[in-house]
Amino acid sequence: MASGKTVKQEGPQSYDIGAGPVGLMLSTCLARWGYKIKHIDNRPEPTRTGRADGIQPRSLDLIRNMGLKADIMAHKPARVYEVAFWDPSQSGQGIARTVTWASCPSFIDARYPFTTLLHQGHIERVFIRDLEKHGVEIQRPWTIRGFRSDQKDDPDYPVHVELGHVDGGIFETVRAKYLFGGEGARSLIRQQLNIGIKHRDPIQHVWGVMDGVVKTDFPDIKVRSPATLYLMKCIVHSEHGSIMVIPREDNMVRLYIQIASSTDANWNPRMTATEAEVQASAKKILHPYSIEWQRVEWYSVYPIGQGISDRYTLDQRVFLGGDACHTHSPKAGQGMNTAFLDALNLAWKIHAVESGFADRDLLKTYESERKSAAESLLDFDNRYAKLLSQRQPAPCGVRAASADDEETDEFQDNDFIKTFKESCEFTSGYGVSYGANSLNWSPNHPAKSPLMHPKGTKLTPGSIFINSDVTRVVDANVVHLEQEVPLNGSFRIFIFAGSPCVTRQALLDFANGLSGTRSFYAAYTRPDVGMVSHHESHNPHSLFFTLCTVLASKRSRIEISRDVPGVLARYREHIYADDIWDRRVPNAKAAAHAKMGLDEENGGVVVVRPDGYVGMVASLVEGNGTVDALNDYFSAFCTKKLGQVVSQL
Amino acid sequence: MASGKTVKQEGPQSYDIGAGPVGLMLSTCLARWGYKIKHIDNRPEPTRTGRADGIQPRSLDLIRNMGLKADIMAHKPARVYEVAFWDPSQSGQGIARTVTWASCPSFIDARYPFTTLLHQGHIERVFIRDLEKHGVEIQRPWTIRGFRSDQKDDPDYPVHVELGHVDGGIFETVRAKYLFGGEGARSLIRQQLNIGIKHRDPIQHVWGVMDGVVKTDFPDIKVRSPATLYLMKCIVHSEHGSIMVIPREDNMVRLYIQIASSTDANWNPRMTATEAEVQASAKKILHPYSIEWQRVEWYSVYPIGQGISDRYTLDQRVFLGGDACHTHSPKAGQGMNTAFLDALNLAWKIHAVESGFADRDLLKTYESERKSAAESLLDFDNRYAKLLSQRQPAPCGVRAASADDEETDEFQDNDFIKTFKESCEFTSGYGVSYGANSLNWSPNHPAKSPLMHPKGTKLTPGSIFINSDVTRVVDANVVHLEQEVPLNGSFRIFIFAGSPCVTRQALLDFANGLSGTRSFYAAYTRPDVGMVSHHESHNPHSLFFTLCTVLASKRSRIEISRDVPGVLARYREHIYADDIWDRRVPNAKAAAHAKMGLDEENGGVVVVRPDGYVGMVASLVEGNGTVDALNDYFSAFCTKKLGQVVSQL
Repeated sequence: MASGKTVKQEGPQSYDIGAGPVGLMLSTCLARWGYKIKHIDNRPEPTRTGRADGIQPRSLDLIRNMGLKADIMAHKPARVYEVAFWDPSQSGQGIARTVTWASCPSFIDARYPFTTLLHQGHIERVFIRDLEKHGVEIQRPWTIRGFRSDQKDDPDYPVHVELGHVDGGIFETVRAKYLFGGEGARSLIRQQLNIGIKHRDPIQHVWGVMDGVVKTDFPDIKVRSPATLYLMKCIVHSEHGSIMVIPREDNMVRLYIQIASSTDANWNPRMTATEAEVQASAKKILHPYSIEWQRVEWYSVYPIGQGISDRYTLDQRVFLGGDACHTHSPKAGQGMNTAFLDALNLAWKIHAVESGFADRDLLKTYESERKSAAESLLDFDNRYAKLLSQRQPAPCGVRAASADDEETDEFQDNDFIKTFKESCEFTSGYGVSYGANSLNWSPNHPAKSPLMHPKGTKLTPGSIFINSDVTRVVDANVVHLEQEVPLNGSFRIFIFAGSPCVTRQALLDFANGLSGTRSFYAAYTRPDVGMVSHHESHNPHSLFFTLCTVLASKRSRIEISRDVPGVLARYREHIYADDIWDRRVPNAKAAAHAKMGLDEENGGVVVVRPDGYVGMVASLVEGNGTVDALNDYFSAFCTKKLGQVVSQL
Repeated sequence: MASGKTVKQEGPQSYDIGAGPVGLMLSTCLARWGYKIKHIDNRPEPTRTGRADGIQPRSLDLIRNMGLKADIMAHKPARVYEVAFWDPSQSGQGIARTVTWASCPSFIDARYPFTTLLHQGHIERVFIRDLEKHGVEIQRPWTIRGFRSDQKDDPDYPVHVELGHVDGGIFETVRAKYLFGGEGARSLIRQQLNIGIKHRDPIQHVWGVMDGVVKTDFPDIKVRSPATLYLMKCIVHSEHGSIMVIPREDNMVRLYIQIASSTDANWNPRMTATEAEVQASAKKILHPYSIEWQRVEWYSVYPIGQGISDRYTLDQRVFLGGDACHTHSPKAGQGMNTAFLDALNLAWKIHAVESGFADRDLLKTYESERKSAAESLLDFDNRYAKLLSQRQPAPCGVRAASADDEETDEFQDNDFIKTFKESCEFTSGYGVSYGANSLNWSPNHPAKSPLMHPKGTKLTPGSIFINSDVTRVVDANVVHLEQEVPLNGSFRIFIFAGSPCVTRQALLDFANGLSGTRSFYAAYTRPDVGMVSHHESHNPHSLFFTLCTVLASKRSRIEISRDVPGVLARYREHIYADDIWDRRVPNAKAAAHAKMGLDEENGGVVVVRPDGYVGMVASLVEGNGTVDALNDYFSAFCTKKLGQVVSQL
């Protein structure tokens, strides 16, 4: 069991150990943003064998936004573009492929429409190396022995944590602002907080999982050297049980095999099976194809447990995340991805509060947003796991169907495929969204400006910012707009400026409005604003905002000194021409504007949260209206009173 | 002066030193294909300062095909997407931007439509590391002292080379099959062979080149940290002279400044200028913008010399390439790219001859193909350099024109822009092509089959194979077809199989024809064919061919065991579905077929040379015709008699 705790702390103890993905992601973000971290882990080294993980498309975007994608891809991970479904063949003999399905079908506008499969240890080491660059080293094998959190006792560092080496004999006490438990399903912190786990379902299935190198004539597994595996993810239902096949790096194949189910007559949740029994089972299921193991790297048997933590925090000081909060079957490849998003969600909120930008109440949205995401995950997992474990009642037809969306209506009656299709948005990560609250605008939000959420916009507050290609004006490079601001903890203000000849005055008014001292922007000017290097690209004026201006014009027609007013021009590397054609909006002149559902002439302003989710959308108008709308939005969670209120003082 | 010689040799001397790009590329290819290399260089280490080089789009394709692109990109090179032209402003005061132009406009179907700018030393080290992986280490600083080549004296290793340490005292004699001189413009080997240089033009211009970090308000240079430079390539003509500005990595900027021209009254080709004089000159030219140097990394003055070697080889044993064969101005960024293609062209031909596949006469095509490419380069360079050095007679107007092709007719009368536009295909590398010979089919080729070069094909023998996207059937990955066969020295046979229900018999006949002992394919079966690992993807049967089958069908409808016959199915990882939409052929159902100009129903067969250039195209028909056409083609340069001739024996 992994045990990871992230602690922001005072004093000489400036170390921290990262366990699994959730703790590492949290520490990496906070260390990059200048926080002092102590991170411990009870394992002597990163994950060695076994745990392989699928990085979903949206998570790969995130990893790229952190500048870590090349390090992940250097391991030459397997890429799963399609999933093949096999069922008992119509002839009654063995199995046949029923249908194949895109992992991330084209109706999802993904940059990387595939799942990246890689050993978890490799992924952990990418984060650990980044932490080391920021002066954070891993303290392991250490464990947590106890903690208490009392604001009255110590207002600045209310969390006191006792740590010890796993072998005993060495102990340490740390005072910290926050404690984060990312220790996995058996979280000691969760137990000590007396937070319960709600189980959706009793344990229903026992599965075996086996990693190894195989020799097989099963058509959807093809191993070649050096270290490249051609393989689909396959889900096989047969008269003899079910199996799931997943590619791994280094020519390995992972098989998940169902060993027992609570619907069995002799059901016993502690049922187990030997390696040889599982292999024999796999051979029966894959008949008429043969399979032999040349090497088994790892083998384990586990029951599927589905649970969700009642709370993610009690006091906004001690937090839980990752498997400590939600357990579910690993087969949809969602565990690590959900853990990443838990950590990302908490990291920027801690930063916003600790840096004096946001009210402490903002931290309450961590539990509400992430618990609801976990509930969606369990809903999905429950349906997915159940269908996966079921024996299919009848063969579905042998012909390999098209993966195209419009051609698959005939398969809609197969519950499994229906669930799978409905779930693609969810599994890709693009479908994960947050409900209305102070961050995610809705008609119930305190910001009531009539400019909010202009008609036609395709952006949804709480959902991910839509991908688009634009040309960076300063060097004519074609770039991915959603990737242009690195994960720097800042809100990303995208000013879609429409046609410069139409919006010249509105853009000028917006820039002037930002500069007025009563604005959200000016209210959070950097204290060192006069000393900032002219090389600073993202945060020259405020650490909380990066401004991006997107003009609906050809790059070569844009002259920054003429077309981009005031403060906006200082973000010189964040001025873009919306002049790249996009197949999804083939008739648009300004494709990025069109994809966002913003008027190509009149533009609009989008506030994107530091984690890439849309906060609000407003019209871009002449006068103060647009800046006022943003002031109202930020007033809902910022520490300062903004806009009108300030001007009345 | 760099001195690099590549030698294929016998005996215990198994070392080799790589100098510049041409020698390194040659050695890297041959070392990978199993040849014993000795490579020496007279410099004590790789290029330190000064030489920065632009990797053109086609060269980046080549580097990717060698699996080295990630190593290049890890240096975060600058990418030049556009070139800005500046001229005297209409007001008569200072300069103004006249037009910007894409480096690689969209009418060129390039994967990477930009120039990659990187220090030559970084590029050299990428190759040196690859050589080390193949057991080749650099012997430096060593130089060549003399050589002789005599087939009668020593039929197996006719080249005897005397080497020595540059400091003297240590000497070595090597017996080799080939000697390659890539020692730069002052090649000792060329001089010893008594091969002359033809100068197109007397020396006409003296230029200064300066690398450094600058502070400037010139709008097309923008430096930001960390190590990212936003910059266009700029060509500035002013009343005070001309300047060219190029981005470098590490925030550096390179300036080329014209110091003197033979049209000057006081012209002297030995004219020089100090660093301070050049900086003063640059300041005048860039007025009204300011420029100051924070640091100068490297500064040099050189005359532009334009020359071409009369011969590239005398005996097909001792060869020259790179700057030893052609010198020209560095400003179009063609030197290294031309050197790469010299080396690639020679490498695969040496391999074909030494491995017993091709007649020794094939080596004669090295000089004919590459000398003609160098002549085109000099033609281009001559026009380009002349225009670049000219003072523009009158300002061309201030407005920044669109980079779009259709909107620039008004600039056609400006000679410089016209030349630049015409030359884009050439500078990108996609326009380099070879004339008709035994490798590049034409109606004069000995292969006279009526199936040759079917009507409508857009592929031209001697030109680069057109890029296309397809889906690899075995794992549903979307791939770049032209990149699928690595640079392995094999001919790439692309069987565009059209619609499987139409071509089923033709495909079967083609597969059967390949297997017939009289075929080009079977005649060059691997001697170890029975012992080849089932992991071998590219050369399971023959070291000289990799077969790729592209079906005009959706991936999910393809069942390899049913749709791909015989020997073609063994190349399991090289079976593709032509089901990816392409903007260039928006109405095609099978875009790759359509881009090649092959019938989407009936298909066709394309032979691509090991260096990526098209050799021939034939119709795919039922019966033996298609294989016969390929037999005729290969008979023109292969060591064995193929096809009908063999069957009559």
